[in-house]
Amino acid sequence: MAVYTEIQVEDLIEFLANYSIGTLLSYKGIAEGVENSNYLVHTTLGTYILTLYEKRVCCDDLPFFIGLMEHVAGKGILSPLPVRTRDGVALGMLSGKKAALVTFLDGMSVRRPDAEHCRLLGAALAQFHLAAQDFAMTRPNALSLDGWAHLSHGVRARADEVQAGLQDFLSQELAFLKQAWVNDLPKGIIHADLFPDNVFFLQGKVSGLIDFYFACSDMFAYDVAICLNAWCFEVDGSYNMTKGLSLLAGYQSVRCLTAAEVDAFAVLCRGAALRFLLTRLVDWLDVPEGALVRPKNPLEYYKKLRFHQTMHHAQDYGLTPCV
Amino acid sequence: MAVYTEIQVEDLIEFLANYSIGTLLSYKGIAEGVENSNYLVHTTLGTYILTLYEKRVCCDDLPFFIGLMEHVAGKGILSPLPVRTRDGVALGMLSGKKAALVTFLDGMSVRRPDAEHCRLLGAALAQFHLAAQDFAMTRPNALSLDGWAHLSHGVRARADEVQAGLQDFLSQELAFLKQAWVNDLPKGIIHADLFPDNVFFLQGKVSGLIDFYFACSDMFAYDVAICLNAWCFEVDGSYNMTKGLSLLAGYQSVRCLTAAEVDAFAVLCRGAALRFLLTRLVDWLDVPEGALVRPKNPLEYYKKLRFHQTMHHAQDYGLTPCV
Repeated sequence: MAVYTEIQVEDLIEFLANYSIGTLLSYKGIAEGVENSNYLVHTTLGTYILTLYEKRVCCDDLPFFIGLMEHVAGKGILSPLPVRTRDGVALGMLSGKKAALVTFLDGMSVRRPDAEHCRLLGAALAQFHLAAQDFAMTRPNALSLDGWAHLSHGVRARADEVQAGLQDFLSQELAFLKQAWVNDLPKGIIHADLFPDNVFFLQGKVSGLIDFYFACSDMFAYDVAICLNAWCFEVDGSYNMTKGLSLLAGYQSVRCLTAAEVDAFAVLCRGAALRFLLTRLVDWLDVPEGALVRPKNPLEYYKKLRFHQTMHHAQDYGLTPCV
Repeated sequence: MAVYTEIQVEDLIEFLANYSIGTLLSYKGIAEGVENSNYLVHTTLGTYILTLYEKRVCCDDLPFFIGLMEHVAGKGILSPLPVRTRDGVALGMLSGKKAALVTFLDGMSVRRPDAEHCRLLGAALAQFHLAAQDFAMTRPNALSLDGWAHLSHGVRARADEVQAGLQDFLSQELAFLKQAWVNDLPKGIIHADLFPDNVFFLQGKVSGLIDFYFACSDMFAYDVAICLNAWCFEVDGSYNMTKGLSLLAGYQSVRCLTAAEVDAFAVLCRGAALRFLLTRLVDWLDVPEGALVRPKNPLEYYKKLRFHQTMHHAQDYGLTPCV
């Protein structure tokens, strides 16, 4: 949850005067998003989400994120549509922060997805991949192999505080991934953070994908692996094969994975697990003074990574290419 | 800000099935209220606020609060109207907590009220006093003279950590108030916490009074004193006489203060300042582990109390009874 920046009503009214969205009726800080401050804004013409970008979302990347949201919404993906001012600008300044207004999406995220949710999510992810394929901008993935090496180096001295032997484990896994990682799989724009909080459902359908602030250019199948990790493990750390099969089948109902993607899948799952293990470890070891967010336990991803180390082939996940 | 209890979507759908308010479309935890968890709930039929009562609001008092909200809303006060289930029940259970659903009110609170806001607030307070006058239930004010003595005793050992000499100051003020306090002024239900966060404005009018969880039976003029303290001081601690006069005139435009109320006003202001000084001191000295709320500085109310100690007569505030 996060409301870092308080907005004064006078400032908001001045900000909204640039838009054609009616008169302000109310606004509430909402407990959503970790990186930014989010407000639900209610006007005479509708409901909107106002986001103030806090330091961790780099300002240089905002045109990419805004552009991507506009692009995929225009392709029919149910995702927040940035609202432009009368002058055609989608990114403004409010309370000293970069700010954007997007349309509000109905729907609820699920905390404990079932197999059907996983199937729907898989299909929505593939639809997003296809919709974003002709988006003109690119953004390198700072959280891939090189990024992991950098993060691992940063936590080296303190990883064993969290679990004995963790630093050695990280070094070995990184060494494995350096030689096993592939780079020649189908690429495009990936969401890279499509966790259950970022997917809304309504009446048995996906009603919204949100939070595009980790989106970047990378391999599609890596995004599938991120989702498998986020959606198909139980609270006790066990992998749910039914959910995994369902997610993969949902994805392939829209976009077939190539033979090369299938071959690489087990390695991609390990990389995807290491990525979240490392960033959570960084957050865990460095909770800022007065933080409103309790960091997520990195060991959840340690367990997932350990599981994937026992899986050597795509068949172990029940994954086969489309027929 | 506060979202202490996370609600699972399945639980919420089951809870809402008892009401005739349509189908759930979305719900968001909002950063509002300190004592409870609040969610903005959007259904096919409208927008509602769902409150989960956390430990500090005593369950025994909930029927009083709910009943009061229904009573004053029925009298035309713009305040949240509790929604009843099809079985006529306004208080239910959700996620293991007592829970109530109320109508959503448009409008925005102001952080730095001007004199006109103070006038409107004063009038709204008086309207509330009159509207609640024939409410059948009562609730003793646990935060009056006896309560202050109890709180003061509790912080005795540590008050000087916050400011040197504060414990002596508290003892002396309490001794003064014990002899100077009056009890025979016009009474009824008071809001007792009508701070700027709890008053919404829209298009130059009060559009909502919220947060009735400190409401109790006490002297009307004491409620006026609470508001004067909350609305008419500047950030630097100085009293703004223009705002004070405006608040008092607004109040008296609806309900005349009696000569006895006017006479007692300076003492009531001191009591009202001591009450918030003490409760803030308690919160300041005892921040629970993992708290999401940063406690408010008690010394803001120390300064206000020091100011009131220099004011001896209602005339010092420019206050006179209605002609």
